[in-house]
Amino acid sequence: MKLTILGCYAATPRTLTNPTAQVLEVKNHLFLIDCGEGTQVQLRKLKIRFSKINHIFISHLHGDHFFGLPGLVATFRLLGRANPLHIYGPKGIKEAVRLLLKLGDSWTNYPLHFHELTESTPSLVFEDAKVRVSSIPLDHRIYTNGFLIEEKLGSRKLDPEAAAAYEIDRCYFQNIKDGKDVPNAAGTLVPNYKLSTEPPAPKRYAYCSDTAYFPDLVPQIKGVDALYHESTFLESEAALATKTKHATAKQAAKIAAAAGVGSLILGHYSTRYAGLEEFKQEALEFFPKVLLADDGLSFDI
Amino acid sequence: MKLTILGCYAATPRTLTNPTAQVLEVKNHLFLIDCGEGTQVQLRKLKIRFSKINHIFISHLHGDHFFGLPGLVATFRLLGRANPLHIYGPKGIKEAVRLLLKLGDSWTNYPLHFHELTESTPSLVFEDAKVRVSSIPLDHRIYTNGFLIEEKLGSRKLDPEAAAAYEIDRCYFQNIKDGKDVPNAAGTLVPNYKLSTEPPAPKRYAYCSDTAYFPDLVPQIKGVDALYHESTFLESEAALATKTKHATAKQAAKIAAAAGVGSLILGHYSTRYAGLEEFKQEALEFFPKVLLADDGLSFDI
Repeated sequence: MKLTILGCYAATPRTLTNPTAQVLEVKNHLFLIDCGEGTQVQLRKLKIRFSKINHIFISHLHGDHFFGLPGLVATFRLLGRANPLHIYGPKGIKEAVRLLLKLGDSWTNYPLHFHELTESTPSLVFEDAKVRVSSIPLDHRIYTNGFLIEEKLGSRKLDPEAAAAYEIDRCYFQNIKDGKDVPNAAGTLVPNYKLSTEPPAPKRYAYCSDTAYFPDLVPQIKGVDALYHESTFLESEAALATKTKHATAKQAAKIAAAAGVGSLILGHYSTRYAGLEEFKQEALEFFPKVLLADDGLSFDI
Repeated sequence: MKLTILGCYAATPRTLTNPTAQVLEVKNHLFLIDCGEGTQVQLRKLKIRFSKINHIFISHLHGDHFFGLPGLVATFRLLGRANPLHIYGPKGIKEAVRLLLKLGDSWTNYPLHFHELTESTPSLVFEDAKVRVSSIPLDHRIYTNGFLIEEKLGSRKLDPEAAAAYEIDRCYFQNIKDGKDVPNAAGTLVPNYKLSTEPPAPKRYAYCSDTAYFPDLVPQIKGVDALYHESTFLESEAALATKTKHATAKQAAKIAAAAGVGSLILGHYSTRYAGLEEFKQEALEFFPKVLLADDGLSFDI
């Protein structure tokens, strides 16, 4: 998995900072998560081949998370897109995008599918042979979901030397990768574990923005390799965080610690702060592996 | 009048070019004309005090002319705006902005007034003591208006030496500026022209984008000091211009010549062209005073 931050600042686009959007490369997918104003320009600046985006996941319908979506949908048409585009987000997203296109007497000449989310419990949002995406219900001022993106367990890895030593015919190799015991030349079944090794552990990434401090989400994200958790504020503004249903860096770290995640990526910073280092220092008191998101940065997960 | 180009490229925002938006400073107003995606960032980059924008004029509801509007309206709230904001644009603009705010359970804590335009003939859009804005019906794929912004004739300029020589009491000075004849100390009426001079000629600016070649608009813009006329294409793409209801640089120049304008400002360039100089050269064959708009440029009118 490779995560690229297009924007990770709260509220409004500014000269040097962008509202929320990020791209996750996973198993040949390019998932776009949230789409604040200016996302298509960030995609260009970072030279991301965004025509390959087929799935867009929108957490909630505050402008800094989706006002870039109508423009991106329109741009795809201008670029001659033919592949279907799937958009997952709260109820209302379809009406909004369609109205804005309709007012311009515009349309998409590619299939555009909306998948509106209304569940208040974790739900399967997307699934194919290699990846699963689930919603993570969050606690914000309006209906909001984070997203849990999980690779599925891959095939077992064939050990070619063992297969040769046991005189296994090539026609059984796919069965070995599928975990089956297979016969040798003499017709005796050889146990799978002697012919293959464990597949690499599937990666898991959890995106949690925007949300108040919300320990209810911990069970769902237990042990993920990376957690992006919003930290709009520092503890010094904890009252404001509570009032606006955002989290502090300390609260993000406490969630990361409770869930035992591999690393915590902070983001969705209020633009009131001059720098980001204080976010990291505050979180490090409660969790050891803290990374700071910033516009244009990439993380290997 | 001072015109600042925030963006003057067609279709989609790109790494180095912005969709249409411009700011006109006129008689203490800061008028925003069109508002493509990223307009608020351009306002910041160009250090325009955009909290002073009280009137926004939208030509038509294609995304590259208004997808930045919902974000700007939302940002005004976050910045604590209190002054009323007036938005003038085609029918549907109110529904679009309100829907996007409603979906985010957002609101404006300042008065937001929509003035929807539906006329197909030139109509008064805004007027106060010093400025008048009228719609310029254009010929595009959807309902589109340009805008004619005209200063009103100011007060006559008092000649203090003449007033002293004719022994005019100060209490009559405003009457003199208003063009009236006033009595001298002896009670004899002194004709106004002996006490004052002509006010400066009012400036007139016409904004015409997007439109096909449309000579019908010439009578309304006769003699304006500056005409911004779209030139999406060069003559080599004239067929494409006709098909998409856009204009070429040659056609823009022909409109400028027919209207006898002071200067022609070209813009709304298709991003297919590597540079802008060809637009100027093509237009110069038909009209002598051609300027090239570009993002970030300002023009004194």
